[in-house]
Amino acid sequence: MNCFTVQARDAGARAGILHTAHGDVATPVFMPVGTQASVKGVTPDELTACGVGIILANAYHLYLRPGADLIAHAGGLHAFMSWTGAILTDSGGFQVFSLARLSRVDDDGYHFASHLDGSRHSFTPESVVALQETLGSDIAMVLDDLVPAGVDEARARDAAQRTLDWAQRAKRAIRRDDQLTFAIVQGSTFEALRRRQAQDLAALDFPGYAIGGLWVGEGRDVGLAMVDASTSELPVEKPRYLMGVGTPQDLIESIARGVDMFDCVYPTRSARHALALTTSGRLNLRNAAFARDLRPLDAQCQCPVCASFTRAYLAHLFRAGEMLAPRLVSVHNIAFLSELTRSARTAIVGGRYASWSEQRLAALRDATASG
Amino acid sequence: MNCFTVQARDAGARAGILHTAHGDVATPVFMPVGTQASVKGVTPDELTACGVGIILANAYHLYLRPGADLIAHAGGLHAFMSWTGAILTDSGGFQVFSLARLSRVDDDGYHFASHLDGSRHSFTPESVVALQETLGSDIAMVLDDLVPAGVDEARARDAAQRTLDWAQRAKRAIRRDDQLTFAIVQGSTFEALRRRQAQDLAALDFPGYAIGGLWVGEGRDVGLAMVDASTSELPVEKPRYLMGVGTPQDLIESIARGVDMFDCVYPTRSARHALALTTSGRLNLRNAAFARDLRPLDAQCQCPVCASFTRAYLAHLFRAGEMLAPRLVSVHNIAFLSELTRSARTAIVGGRYASWSEQRLAALRDATASG
Repeated sequence: MNCFTVQARDAGARAGILHTAHGDVATPVFMPVGTQASVKGVTPDELTACGVGIILANAYHLYLRPGADLIAHAGGLHAFMSWTGAILTDSGGFQVFSLARLSRVDDDGYHFASHLDGSRHSFTPESVVALQETLGSDIAMVLDDLVPAGVDEARARDAAQRTLDWAQRAKRAIRRDDQLTFAIVQGSTFEALRRRQAQDLAALDFPGYAIGGLWVGEGRDVGLAMVDASTSELPVEKPRYLMGVGTPQDLIESIARGVDMFDCVYPTRSARHALALTTSGRLNLRNAAFARDLRPLDAQCQCPVCASFTRAYLAHLFRAGEMLAPRLVSVHNIAFLSELTRSARTAIVGGRYASWSEQRLAALRDATASG
Repeated sequence: MNCFTVQARDAGARAGILHTAHGDVATPVFMPVGTQASVKGVTPDELTACGVGIILANAYHLYLRPGADLIAHAGGLHAFMSWTGAILTDSGGFQVFSLARLSRVDDDGYHFASHLDGSRHSFTPESVVALQETLGSDIAMVLDDLVPAGVDEARARDAAQRTLDWAQRAKRAIRRDDQLTFAIVQGSTFEALRRRQAQDLAALDFPGYAIGGLWVGEGRDVGLAMVDASTSELPVEKPRYLMGVGTPQDLIESIARGVDMFDCVYPTRSARHALALTTSGRLNLRNAAFARDLRPLDAQCQCPVCASFTRAYLAHLFRAGEMLAPRLVSVHNIAFLSELTRSARTAIVGGRYASWSEQRLAALRDATASG
């Protein structure tokens, strides 16, 4: 059975349903990040109240702490963190690459030292499949070979080839039939490489596909061009997930190019820096302009934070160093991105994505509210 | 009209109802502390779900930041923080004494420098009445003259006399009729002084009385003896509030001595240090014993945290430095103390406080759960 149903198409944009072992998820969808089995400061109940049905967790972090055996002992990741919705786990490639002390990448996999205690570990395409099966996520990612931004084409081609080989090995290693495994399109900023890898991976018939290695410093136009190149070669009936993206603008532009799924620490990390997302741009709550502002963060927002609290109160909480501040703004920011993707979906179904996106992008450029 | 109704007495313990402009509060009651107009990490909705009907805020902190004029601009403290229950504000005497750079106390009041920016301010008995009337709390405290633990009787007597004089001045300064003003019994650890001051303040006919200057290092037996001395001289028909107390044991022992109201940072501060309160003692969630423990914090607890999360998960969150950890344990600890006082009330009404308190104190001494 296909895990994805495309319900409507509007130029390049798509509205669909992703079918997982923990419920159906309407797309386009933004997945809040719960790296360590916790979306920072936010409870599962609050995520549900924000309209969130799927979150991301990181296999690398959970492997190191608290360990997959403990999570299995607790009945799997859903039971461990008390989340009844769907979970996508990242394979750990990106974290090994960016966070751990990486000693070697070879055809076998990654060999690295933990960022926590320096202990030595290896991740192979097979071991990360087994790891994610133990965690029990609904969607697992294959291990991919990453390269820094700005490498030459030969190096990018080698990494893409290894990513393809690893995807084949991952596919053979799958044992659970209730978990969807997504392959990852690499290819740095080389369009032909991206297209070729998307074609090669498409031939392997994975349930879904991610686009990786972007938004790492290549510039937004280049990133969007690479998204275009990738989605145009991927099968239309499979979900596409753009990893680690992004801002409201990024989401709107990428949905237009056929992306269905997103994840990013942006809403929660912004919240910890007193930055609130609104339809008319981002507010810096440390700005003096908000100290006496009795309006909610966003007058159009239906979230529980906007129902109860003013900008002035939230600004006070940040100045006073109160932990309630990042918590409340995290809830709002997640609700905001969740609403943005729901609104995008409605526009796609209604065949008016172009005008909707034009209007939302114009509003986001509104300077008056950006403080 | 009396702001307090005594509904039942059981030896020294009392069950009552405190009538405030923001609702009736059943006593004995524990008031969580929201120093800066926020109970650290916890929303008003969560407080309500924990059975909390009254909280404490600090006039000193709110005066300095965000300022009483902003809070008035927001419609008062309740509207500012979106809390519909009752609020008691501390007068600021204790904070000036313990936190600010105090330059002088004289018959006029306190003269001090802000702990935030060194700016110079004065608090007088009259100014703190006006300040709390601007904040719009339901219960205001008079300014009291504090002395360090261990002073001699002459110094304690002078401070008690000044506290009495200031209480009289505060009473004359009251303008609002929807705010209850409580006087504060001082007298350090001198029983005769405590008794005398309780009698003198009782003669002034305040709506309620606090017992201050205790649990500051004098030792628990001495503190409880001073509580006894104070409550035995205070009018039975008025509420008694023991300031800055305390642990479950402290509450149980003080309720037996006729105390109706408590406040303390204990549940929230403990939570930030990974300490969870349970019927069988305090758990340190950093203890290795809890890493694989799939039980809730307290099997008898009805709070939303115990309904959803295990000790193992909470222990993981603390180890991983996740902000969800202190948040969840704060909710549990507040719910725990709230349940403790409700249970005490039921025992008093049922005429079995002695056996109830004996059983609860014995359970708290249970070494098996204290990790």
